[in-house]
Amino acid sequence: MVLREMKSSIAEIDGGLLDQAQKRLDSLTKPRGSLGRLEEFAKQIVAITGRAMPALDKKAVFTFAGDHGVADEGVSAFPREVTAQMVLNFLNGGAGINVLARHAGADVVVVDIGVAREFEGIERANFVSRKVVRGTRNMRKGPAMTREEALRCLEVGAELAEEYARRGYVIFGTGEMGIGNTTPSSAITAVMTGRDIEEVTGRGTGIDEETWRRKVEVVRDSISINRPDPADPVDVLAKVGGAEIGGIAGLILGAAEKRIPVVIDGFISTAGALIAHAIEPRTGHYMFAAHRSQEAGHGAQLERIGLRPILDLDLRLGEGTGAALAMLLIEAGTRIYREMATFEEAAVADGKQG
Amino acid sequence: MVLREMKSSIAEIDGGLLDQAQKRLDSLTKPRGSLGRLEEFAKQIVAITGRAMPALDKKAVFTFAGDHGVADEGVSAFPREVTAQMVLNFLNGGAGINVLARHAGADVVVVDIGVAREFEGIERANFVSRKVVRGTRNMRKGPAMTREEALRCLEVGAELAEEYARRGYVIFGTGEMGIGNTTPSSAITAVMTGRDIEEVTGRGTGIDEETWRRKVEVVRDSISINRPDPADPVDVLAKVGGAEIGGIAGLILGAAEKRIPVVIDGFISTAGALIAHAIEPRTGHYMFAAHRSQEAGHGAQLERIGLRPILDLDLRLGEGTGAALAMLLIEAGTRIYREMATFEEAAVADGKQG
Repeated sequence: MVLREMKSSIAEIDGGLLDQAQKRLDSLTKPRGSLGRLEEFAKQIVAITGRAMPALDKKAVFTFAGDHGVADEGVSAFPREVTAQMVLNFLNGGAGINVLARHAGADVVVVDIGVAREFEGIERANFVSRKVVRGTRNMRKGPAMTREEALRCLEVGAELAEEYARRGYVIFGTGEMGIGNTTPSSAITAVMTGRDIEEVTGRGTGIDEETWRRKVEVVRDSISINRPDPADPVDVLAKVGGAEIGGIAGLILGAAEKRIPVVIDGFISTAGALIAHAIEPRTGHYMFAAHRSQEAGHGAQLERIGLRPILDLDLRLGEGTGAALAMLLIEAGTRIYREMATFEEAAVADGKQG
Repeated sequence: MVLREMKSSIAEIDGGLLDQAQKRLDSLTKPRGSLGRLEEFAKQIVAITGRAMPALDKKAVFTFAGDHGVADEGVSAFPREVTAQMVLNFLNGGAGINVLARHAGADVVVVDIGVAREFEGIERANFVSRKVVRGTRNMRKGPAMTREEALRCLEVGAELAEEYARRGYVIFGTGEMGIGNTTPSSAITAVMTGRDIEEVTGRGTGIDEETWRRKVEVVRDSISINRPDPADPVDVLAKVGGAEIGGIAGLILGAAEKRIPVVIDGFISTAGALIAHAIEPRTGHYMFAAHRSQEAGHGAQLERIGLRPILDLDLRLGEGTGAALAMLLIEAGTRIYREMATFEEAAVADGKQG
């Protein structure tokens, strides 16, 4: 994949399609605009996909898994081996993302892009082995990945977008698993938004005050040692990022290229979205922000890209759980668009307004 | 139905069940509390229903329809006959509530409790004819209903709760249709919360500034002419309420009696909830607030009852549309509760916290 080629093949949204969709929405048996954001979702889906009557019938949530060298610094409430244990939990259908994806009618695609442990002999339709690294290196001591590894992560994500588009999937969600991964996400967010490190470093899975202070210092050291260049998002991803974050960024770039809407989960996913957006700002038109995460710094990320979250349910699990839930609401918008009767069809008198 | 009897048979929530549910939630393969409000929904459903592993497999949204004499004052953007036209649209499956209830796996029950027009010869499984009034009287000139009519509306709602509980439904949503019905809802809200009339009177289906000013005057006159007694919620319902608002209040009282959770839609439904809550404050434990409506005054209603809305999607359609959507999220909580693997089952290491 040549990044430059991919960038140039991501199109602007067609404003004419937005107008066309608005016209249909205004003909449906309801006061104009009274379904609020559901109408906005429907319009955006029409404009992204270019389909006159889009149906979100084939959905996939990609849960990228990777380990982090920086977990050695004691920045997480969970031991490092939990990344691999949770991958097995995903494959057995017992994790939060499995339950919520089933509820949303979405398939979960588990991607080993950087787990430290090997998963040999696992042959499952929903398991994709595309290991770029066996865990990243400890970014407090040097770059987490080489530039080549970071580019390869982007490529893996973009390839998956292409593959699953070919298989007929029409909407993607992002998700991740990686013990320690709020730490690189905070580093990326601080570098890309220019905010203070304390402001964009949160409690992750639930650390105490002392661990939080250490985490802030780890982020500070990682940035000062590696000096990632905010004008070069691949440099940022390589030096203070992670494999799963790169996979997510690549998936977003690939989705935008294929005109597939992509639902961004929480804090770590949005760190990936920051990278994709910095590579190509037009990707922003293809994104939906699933929810407002409890994690500090998520607001700064959303503001940077210009996204308004769909849900606000105090979630902070990751895995793609918020994305699965938000898909249900985006689909509600497209069903309204497709299935409601018009004033004419239903012989209902239209209102005075408009 | 004797109101006093019904009140006394509404139970407090069992705190022991909340603790029991918390224990299970903390054993599931996720950081504690990381599914935020989904966990809260699951706990509340366990405590309301008393079921160890509740499944929300049979859901109903009740859309109560009624006309309003006060529509003669020109307070709505739509002509009065739209109430009956929309009832037919509901029965044909073409309205917003039909689409969103299908999406949520819920049945829509359309209740004619006060439409001015007759629906003769309509025999549909989802149509219930329980007409109490042929439209209310114009409350600007006197009471909208008699006390007996108001009590009969409460009774209709409570009877439906009983009937549908018997048929195996395990969660209810409220909804309504009635041209002009934000006007009595504003009057009820002003009387029951003590807020200024301007503060709780909104734009309804989309009226202009001049119509809004008239609407405020209509609410003011209706209250000053009828002098509803805030200490007597049945008096408020009769004098400045509406049949569908009474039906909703009755449904809530009946649901609480049967230990069935009830999802309150937007502004008009929450006016009904204010009446139910004033009759018996314990009903509040059985309620979920579906969403934060765009309608002014909704916030004051929610604050009064002590409810935090689930969704915030700029909805202002009514019919039960927000309730149907919110059911999807409440059900997500119960599915998490039932279907996720525990740390032990999945052989995942637990975190340090807690």
